Amino acid sequence: MINLAILGGTGYTALELIKILLRHPHAKIVAVTTRQQETPLVAQAHPSLTGRFDLRMEPFDPDRLVSRGVQCVFGCLPHGASMDAIPPLLDRGLRVIDLSADYRLRDPNVYAQWYGESHHDLVNLTQAVYGLPEIYGDDIAPAQLVANPGCYPQTAILGLAPLVAGKQIELHDIIVDSKSGVSGAGRTPKLTTHFPECNESVSAYNVGQHRHIPEMEQALSDIAGEPVHVVFTPQLVPMDRGIYSTIYATPRRSFTEGQLLELYRTYYANAPFVRVVDHLPATKDTSHTNFLDITVRVVRGKVVALVAEDNLVRGASGVAVQNFNRMFGFDERTGLL
Amino acid sequence: MINLAILGGTGYTALELIKILLRHPHAKIVAVTTRQQETPLVAQAHPSLTGRFDLRMEPFDPDRLVSRGVQCVFGCLPHGASMDAIPPLLDRGLRVIDLSADYRLRDPNVYAQWYGESHHDLVNLTQAVYGLPEIYGDDIAPAQLVANPGCYPQTAILGLAPLVAGKQIELHDIIVDSKSGVSGAGRTPKLTTHFPECNESVSAYNVGQHRHIPEMEQALSDIAGEPVHVVFTPQLVPMDRGIYSTIYATPRRSFTEGQLLELYRTYYANAPFVRVVDHLPATKDTSHTNFLDITVRVVRGKVVALVAEDNLVRGASGVAVQNFNRMFGFDERTGLL
Amino acid sequence: MINLAILGGTGYTALELIKILLRHPHAKIVAVTTRQQETPLVAQAHPSLTGRFDLRMEPFDPDRLVSRGVQCVFGCLPHGASMDAIPPLLDRGLRVIDLSADYRLRDPNVYAQWYGESHHDLVNLTQAVYGLPEIYGDDIAPAQLVANPGCYPQTAILGLAPLVAGKQIELHDIIVDSKSGVSGAGRTPKLTTHFPECNESVSAYNVGQHRHIPEMEQALSDIAGEPVHVVFTPQLVPMDRGIYSTIYATPRRSFTEGQLLELYRTYYANAPFVRVVDHLPATKDTSHTNFLDITVRVVRGKVVALVAEDNLVRGASGVAVQNFNRMFGFDERTGLL
Amino acid sequence: MINLAILGGTGYTALELIKILLRHPHAKIVAVTTRQQETPLVAQAHPSLTGRFDLRMEPFDPDRLVSRGVQCVFGCLPHGASMDAIPPLLDRGLRVIDLSADYRLRDPNVYAQWYGESHHDLVNLTQAVYGLPEIYGDDIAPAQLVANPGCYPQTAILGLAPLVAGKQIELHDIIVDSKSGVSGAGRTPKLTTHFPECNESVSAYNVGQHRHIPEMEQALSDIAGEPVHVVFTPQLVPMDRGIYSTIYATPRRSFTEGQLLELYRTYYANAPFVRVVDHLPATKDTSHTNFLDITVRVVRGKVVALVAEDNLVRGASGVAVQNFNRMFGFDERTGLL
Repeated sequence: MINLAILGGTGYTALELIKILLRHPHAKIVAVTTRQQETPLVAQAHPSLTGRFDLRMEPFDPDRLVSRGVQCVFGCLPHGASMDAIPPLLDRGLRVIDLSADYRLRDPNVYAQWYGESHHDLVNLTQAVYGLPEIYGDDIAPAQLVANPGCYPQTAILGLAPLVAGKQIELHDIIVDSKSGVSGAGRTPKLTTHFPECNESVSAYNVGQHRHIPEMEQALSDIAGEPVHVVFTPQLVPMDRGIYSTIYATPRRSFTEGQLLELYRTYYANAPFVRVVDHLPATKDTSHTNFLDITVRVVRGKVVALVAEDNLVRGASGVAVQNFNRMFGFDERTGLL
Repeated sequence: MINLAILGGTGYTALELIKILLRHPHAKIVAVTTRQQETPLVAQAHPSLTGRFDLRMEPFDPDRLVSRGVQCVFGCLPHGASMDAIPPLLDRGLRVIDLSADYRLRDPNVYAQWYGESHHDLVNLTQAVYGLPEIYGDDIAPAQLVANPGCYPQTAILGLAPLVAGKQIELHDIIVDSKSGVSGAGRTPKLTTHFPECNESVSAYNVGQHRHIPEMEQALSDIAGEPVHVVFTPQLVPMDRGIYSTIYATPRRSFTEGQLLELYRTYYANAPFVRVVDHLPATKDTSHTNFLDITVRVVRGKVVALVAEDNLVRGASGVAVQNFNRMFGFDERTGLL
Repeated sequence: MINLAILGGTGYTALELIKILLRHPHAKIVAVTTRQQETPLVAQAHPSLTGRFDLRMEPFDPDRLVSRGVQCVFGCLPHGASMDAIPPLLDRGLRVIDLSADYRLRDPNVYAQWYGESHHDLVNLTQAVYGLPEIYGDDIAPAQLVANPGCYPQTAILGLAPLVAGKQIELHDIIVDSKSGVSGAGRTPKLTTHFPECNESVSAYNVGQHRHIPEMEQALSDIAGEPVHVVFTPQLVPMDRGIYSTIYATPRRSFTEGQLLELYRTYYANAPFVRVVDHLPATKDTSHTNFLDITVRVVRGKVVALVAEDNLVRGASGVAVQNFNRMFGFDERTGLL
Repeated sequence: MINLAILGGTGYTALELIKILLRHPHAKIVAVTTRQQETPLVAQAHPSLTGRFDLRMEPFDPDRLVSRGVQCVFGCLPHGASMDAIPPLLDRGLRVIDLSADYRLRDPNVYAQWYGESHHDLVNLTQAVYGLPEIYGDDIAPAQLVANPGCYPQTAILGLAPLVAGKQIELHDIIVDSKSGVSGAGRTPKLTTHFPECNESVSAYNVGQHRHIPEMEQALSDIAGEPVHVVFTPQLVPMDRGIYSTIYATPRRSFTEGQLLELYRTYYANAPFVRVVDHLPATKDTSHTNFLDITVRVVRGKVVALVAEDNLVRGASGVAVQNFNRMFGFDERTGLL
């Protein structure tokens, strides 16, 4: 049994983590921290946990976590706050899975450019592993610090990986058109996520400027072995959870749909959470699961990949537990089926 | 053509008013005020008005409204703020339709008890007319100050009026169970109206403590000629607009459904916006209209009245225009069909 | 490990059962039947099961189920069809949990009156146990045939049980006002459940005539020891899952809210899936769980109980597994947390 | 006052037409036909019209329409049925606005290829005018038969027209990624539009095979003066109404966003229902209006046009009335603001 702590317990990813981990046979949450003054019961912040989880939130204190036997910490803090909290944990020998963006981009200049502030934990940044198991699986097992991937990037990277791996497509002519449920925007009330504003509406935001773009491009460039560029349009749709990414690419040679599906199936033969399906995916079929569903079509010479996931599970807390499983030597499906 | 001003232009009732009034053949909006520092174009606060309405918001200034020829003002301010803004308008001879709660309750002690602050415009309070046209129609035409009714109270009052008018039911054994779309909570983001919190959920709030209770009871007591008591439960449902009230009462004598429907049809024979229907109403059938749909059933000796309305139109801005029409001598349907 | 079969695999309750049972450590689904000509893979009828469950549907054949070692059968057939399929299973010694209404009403005349056809399995009807574990728990363990309770009745019965048990309320003056998500209407497309008809709308249906009424009254009368009558209004709200029941009763003596909450907590002290909470419940907090949340308020002398559940889990497939656990000697929470 | 008839009164486009036309000062609906045996009141098929519209549906009879003084007919029949019903109307000198697809595609071979049946009214096909007012406005005024445009095509054509008009983009490298509310699928219940299936989900359908593709390409090729090809992906999102199209194109020369916005504003200078906006559009801002909102962005060298409309108003019945206004010499905005 591994003792765990969760940093930043009031948001949706923390809630989702707790729900998953309560079912995990080898994990025990012993602390949930908060940066707020009040330290309510976790079940007061998340009434759905009433009667299931009786910890009280506590202020963040690295030594106290050590004294409680914590071996692994899940960081659910916002970017910026994460790179303050995590170094003292690493110093004390704890292993960390950080769900923020702070350790995802290897180049601190890219971080500064997209996040508008300098990275101030360069030492640990160099050692962080990008926690997308289907791509960086071998690096995750021994890592002390895993940067859990973003929700949108996973759909783009896994939707394109089989194509860019063999340079089957033009690497500078890729479009990722994504539609996300509203929980992706977090739990802080804003006008754009106020029910009567976003319900019964679809709208784009941060067109070409979303912070997940460099993350997509970093991983895709790793896979291709040369720079990959992506045009990315995120859109808000009126549902709680789910991301649907429709990806358009220009193949370098002619493919049939059968060949493409075969290419994808081969690529993901050992990936239990990527389902290459014949039918057109729907986000609902992945809802509350760690599965990411993909299919591929050929339309007028373009390759169209369609990818669905649950943004809170596969897109955040589920893949975090998948990483945890790999780091601690459990079957990666443990607690996730 | 009547020149109009709207006080407090950033919320949903102001938007709905503007949309209705843009179609009104005898009304012209010449000013929209805001209490905020910035004075954007109205169409910036409400992008749906782009290209349809080019006024800029302005600070509240009674003399300036007079100088612009304003004859009637619609108040869309929160309670408390309304009774600050409205006296200087009345002093200058303007007529006012106030959509806040400030002038709805005749007894200032009741106001203080439910709203937690003393009423500080007692002079005008005594002259205000409660603007429910189907009940107080004769008083509305000559009124200088009309207190536009609340959204929930209209369903309760009109759903019960034919029964309490003839004391056909026990006046202290009435239950009003209401379900409201989220726009009823206003436009200010809060956790309870954050999309991922209230979507895919039903929940009650302010059970037995909602501020609309004294408003319901005041009007129903007027109609009955003796005190009426109501048990009221408001509930939030995941939709933009609409209120559905299911009302349970104990008849003093035996009724058939046919008799009850006839009683209602007779009572509302001259009310063009109350539709007494045979089928069970649905809020969708009243959506974006000023209609309030009612039917009645008899179940195990209880009378069950089912009432549907659009909370923003019939429940607020539509009935405000209906009041405006009565005050200025237009057919009450003008601009509302 | 208990071998299980599911009859009628294409609907929502079957899907939900499969999802729950895939996590159950002591249960194995070995057959899923269908009454339709085609026998697709279960995962073709329910794409969310892709890669998780590879059985093919098969025609119903009792002997074949016996030969596969099936010990327990979950019936997900419509009423009427259930009482055709279940007798041959019972004859062969199998135990059955029937999710239809066919064995819920002890009196066949009441069945005929509400369901419009004669009951034609009177022998087994007399032996069926109504599977509401918190009320009939002792009878469930040894039962061969359990009639799984309806979704609405569970909220009414458990919401009222502590009050009627001690005859704390008038037994003929009870109102149950319920709001249900659309999955409660099943998976067969109809105009009333067509998205653009029921989305953004609330409407009542079958007022005072819903078939769940006699089921509520039978159980409540059992608890009270004398006849109980209920006025019941079901309403459709635009969400996938969840039932919210607001229950109004007239107490025979004066209670404080604290006394009532204490009464409920005592009554449900040993019921792990009933959560008596201080706050007002929300269906979302019970979503995808087997919990039923209750609180109680006192308003103008009436008792108001507010109850939330997930209609597919607690209201159908979850409580079915809870019954299964009791029948086969497992902790009743197994597979349900 | 022009007397009108509507063919096929039970669907959503007919309902929307009636609502719009009830506000039109120069139009009077004198007949609504149905192909079904029963001829209910229109308000029985559409309860929202209760008390507003008291016509009874009637069987289709061209001579009877003539005898009633009908001058213009709106066809709301499915494709295939339309080209049966319309010829006798044209023979009798009536003018027709057909909302089906039957007269949209000039080439009957293309029709046969995409609709799976031969076109059997070739005579009238040659005279039909494609009713997109912003593009074919001059031809609409004198037309006897107007083929009202499809919902998706309007977003694609108007979103691209300023670019293809001057051949500013590659004409064979265009992607149209569209998201539609569920009313676009019509009023006939199907599993894909059953609330619990499509709510809380996004999914693509008919990828690269949707029947609106040839319609888009025909109009865009007209504008460009040479063939244009489009990759089109339609997707269903959980809302009643609204289409959001995100369009990706490759410019032939370098543009700034300011230049593109200027290009669009100039192109649509005389189009009162096309709003070229600086902000990112949202479908909600066009809901229940005839406006189509567009903006343009430049991302990594691609042009991204974002287009929003209400699929039932602008996408069908609103533009039909806009065509009607042009055909009968009214200001094209009449009844639509």
